[in-house]
Amino acid sequence: MRAEIVSVGTELLLGQIVNTNAQFLSRGLAELGIDVYYQTVVGDNMDRLLKTIELARGRADLLVFTGGLGPTMDDLTRDAVAAYLRRGMEEHEPTMRKLEEMFAGRGAALIESNRKQALLVEGATPLRNNTGLAIGNALSADGTHYLLLPGPPREMKPMFENDASAWLRELLGQADTLHSVMMRFAGIGESALEDLLIDLVREQSDPTIAPYAKEGEVAVRVSTKAPNAEEAQRKMESTLVEIRRRTDRFLYAEEDIPIETEVMRLLLRQRRTLALAESCTGGMVAEMVTTVPGSADAFLGGVVSYTNAVKRDLLGVPEGLLEGEGAPGAVSEETAAAMAEGARRFADSDFGVSVTGVAGPASSEGKPVGLVYLGLAERGKPTRTEKLQLSGDREGIRLRASKRALYRLWLALTGRE
Amino acid sequence: MRAEIVSVGTELLLGQIVNTNAQFLSRGLAELGIDVYYQTVVGDNMDRLLKTIELARGRADLLVFTGGLGPTMDDLTRDAVAAYLRRGMEEHEPTMRKLEEMFAGRGAALIESNRKQALLVEGATPLRNNTGLAIGNALSADGTHYLLLPGPPREMKPMFENDASAWLRELLGQADTLHSVMMRFAGIGESALEDLLIDLVREQSDPTIAPYAKEGEVAVRVSTKAPNAEEAQRKMESTLVEIRRRTDRFLYAEEDIPIETEVMRLLLRQRRTLALAESCTGGMVAEMVTTVPGSADAFLGGVVSYTNAVKRDLLGVPEGLLEGEGAPGAVSEETAAAMAEGARRFADSDFGVSVTGVAGPASSEGKPVGLVYLGLAERGKPTRTEKLQLSGDREGIRLRASKRALYRLWLALTGRE
Repeated sequence: MRAEIVSVGTELLLGQIVNTNAQFLSRGLAELGIDVYYQTVVGDNMDRLLKTIELARGRADLLVFTGGLGPTMDDLTRDAVAAYLRRGMEEHEPTMRKLEEMFAGRGAALIESNRKQALLVEGATPLRNNTGLAIGNALSADGTHYLLLPGPPREMKPMFENDASAWLRELLGQADTLHSVMMRFAGIGESALEDLLIDLVREQSDPTIAPYAKEGEVAVRVSTKAPNAEEAQRKMESTLVEIRRRTDRFLYAEEDIPIETEVMRLLLRQRRTLALAESCTGGMVAEMVTTVPGSADAFLGGVVSYTNAVKRDLLGVPEGLLEGEGAPGAVSEETAAAMAEGARRFADSDFGVSVTGVAGPASSEGKPVGLVYLGLAERGKPTRTEKLQLSGDREGIRLRASKRALYRLWLALTGRE
Repeated sequence: MRAEIVSVGTELLLGQIVNTNAQFLSRGLAELGIDVYYQTVVGDNMDRLLKTIELARGRADLLVFTGGLGPTMDDLTRDAVAAYLRRGMEEHEPTMRKLEEMFAGRGAALIESNRKQALLVEGATPLRNNTGLAIGNALSADGTHYLLLPGPPREMKPMFENDASAWLRELLGQADTLHSVMMRFAGIGESALEDLLIDLVREQSDPTIAPYAKEGEVAVRVSTKAPNAEEAQRKMESTLVEIRRRTDRFLYAEEDIPIETEVMRLLLRQRRTLALAESCTGGMVAEMVTTVPGSADAFLGGVVSYTNAVKRDLLGVPEGLLEGEGAPGAVSEETAAAMAEGARRFADSDFGVSVTGVAGPASSEGKPVGLVYLGLAERGKPTRTEKLQLSGDREGIRLRASKRALYRLWLALTGRE
C-alpha cells in the first residue's frame, strides 16, 4: 500500500510550528509496511484542500490527514473530505455527550462551533481521542482510504497508535505485526550508551536496535516483526539479555516510561515515602513525580526554597551554612545534605531528596552556571551527596539536574549504590 | 510572489528526520513577503522529482528545494532541475578548487562523485556554502524561479540567510515584508475567544487575524505586509485597538510569551513577592514561574503539600478544616484560602497563591475529578478563592489549573479584579 501524508494548517506554512506529525506518521506507516511517497502541507483553505485531495488520490491509496478537526472556522479537513466524497456528516454520540458533559460541568452552554468536533464523515469509523475532544475518522471510498487525525501531537499520536493502527492492520490483513521493547536508561548520556552498545548496533539486522533521545534521558528500541508476542519475544531474547548485561546500572525499565514513573512505582511497591527540597529546579522534580497517578501514597510533599530564609525556616538549614564569613553557601554539598535531611524531617518520610545549584543565566555566590549539588537522605542511613557540573541553558540544566536526582533515588531503591 | 517548498530526501519519508528546514524556510519567506501555499516532501527518485517540479510550477512562481545536492547517487535535485529545464551543467570554479584543496589536504584523490557538489545548472547564480561543500543554485526560467539549497540545516540556513535572501530581495525589488503582533490571552478558551472576535475574523483581509492554541492558553496573530514597521503599525492599529477593547480582561501580552513570564515581570516591576502552596498541581506552578530568569527576586518559595500533615505543619492549615466530621476537607474553598495565607505567612511575601483539587484519575474525598479551588492571599487585602470544574486528563487538569492560578494573580497585579 502507498500512503500520502497531508498536514493541514496555515501555521505550518507560516513556519510557526515544526511538522513533527509527518515524521511520526512516516515512521509509524513504515513500521506497518506502508510506503510513503509524498508528504504535503496545505493551508486552511477549502479550494486548495480539495485540490490536494484530488492530487493525493492520484498518487496514493491511503491519505493520512493531520489537523483541521478542531472547533474553529479554520478547521476544514472534515468538511473538505466530506465535500470531495459528496457525503454528509453524522454526529458521534459518545463524543457529543462528552462535549455536553464537559460544558455542563463548566456551567457553560455548548457553543455551536464545538459541536463540529463530534462530527463524522458519513460512514466513517470513529477513532477515539482519549487526550482531546475531536473524534478521528477512518473510511474507505472508491478504492482510496482516508484517515483524519487531529493536529495536536498529544492527540494525534495516541489516536494513531491505537485505533488508527488497528484499522490499518485490518485493512492490510497483516499477519506479522511489529513488536518492540523500549529500553529506558538514566544516568548515562546518548553517546556513552552508544559506546556500550556500538557493536550490537553495527551488527543489527533482526531484531533492529534504534537509539532514541528522550526528555533528559535516553532509550533504545529493540524491534522485530512476528505473528505474535511469544514469537517476537523469542527472536529478541538474546539481544535483550546482552543489552541488560552491559547496561545494568542505567537500565531502569523495559517499557516506555520516564524514570519518575519507575521511581514512584518502586516507592509504592516498597511502601516507602519521599519528600523533596528543591532550589534551582524550582519544583520540577515535584512536578515530575506528581505526574504519576497514585503518587500521593508515596510522595508526601516538597519545599521549593528559593531564598535562604525559606531554607532556614521550612527546611531547618543552619544559618551558618548559608551566610557569613566562610560559609559554604546555598549551593554547596553541606547545604544539599541539610536540605535533604530537612525535607525528610518535615514530612517524616523514608527518603529526602534535595537539589541546589546554579541554573543560570547568571552565576550566583560566585559559583559557575551548571554547578549543582544533589542530596539523598535515607532513614537509618548516612546522607549522600553528589556534585554535578552540567552544561546547556537554564531549562536544560534544570531538566538534567531533576532527572539525575531521580536516578540517584533509583540507585538507592534498587540497591545499586 | 507565491512559493512552494520542496524538501527532497527519502529519509524524510521514512521519518528518520524531522523536516525543520520547511519551517525555517516558511518563516524566512513569509518575512520577505512571499506566500507559501504548499510544502512538499518527495524521495530521492528522478521520476517523482520531475513530476513534483511540474506540479509545483503550476502552483507557484518560486520553487525552493532543500536536499539532494550532495555527492551520492541519491542526490538528484540538481540533475532533475537541469533535466526539467533541458539545461546542461557547468563547474563552479571556486568550489571545485575548494574540493581539490580539501582532498589534497587529506592526501586523498578527489573522487568523481564529489565533483558533483561543484556543479551548477547552466546559467544559475551560485549561492555560497560557507559551512559545507555543495554549492547552491539560484535561477529563473520561463517565469519560474528556482532555489536549490543543501539539506543539512547547518549548510542550508546560512545559505538562505545570506546569498539566497539577497537574490530574492533583488528579484522582488522593494518588496513588502511581513510584520505581525502576537497577542496572548489567558482565562479564556479558544472558541470563546473566537466568539468574541468572530466578526473581525470573518471580515479580515488586511491585516489578517489568526488564532492559535498555546500550552493551556490561546493566542491571536495579527499580521500585515508593509515596507517598514511604522507603516505596518499604522495598518494594524485599528484592528489591535478593537481586539484590545474586546479582550481587556484576558489579553496579557502583545508578544509571544506565556503568562508566567508576564506575571513575573509585573511582580519584579512592582517590587512585590510571591509564595506558592500547591496540592494537585504538585509544583507545576512553581516550575513555571522559575523558568523565568530572574524569578528569584520575586518568587520566594513554595510548598507542595500532598498530605494533610504537610498542609498543617508547613502551611498552618487548621486540622479542623482537613479532617473530622463535617470538615470541608483538603479540596475546599476554606482550605484553598488557608493554604494561600499559609504560603504568604511562611515566606512573608506580598502574595500567596494556592491550588488544591482532584487531578484524577481517581476522585478523592468523594469529590469529582477536575474539581479545583484556587486561593489568592494578598498583603492588606481579604483572601479570594475561585472554584473550577476542569475537564481532560490528569496532565490537562494540572496544566489548566496552573495557568488559571497565574491568571488570577495577573488580574490582581493589573487591578482587573
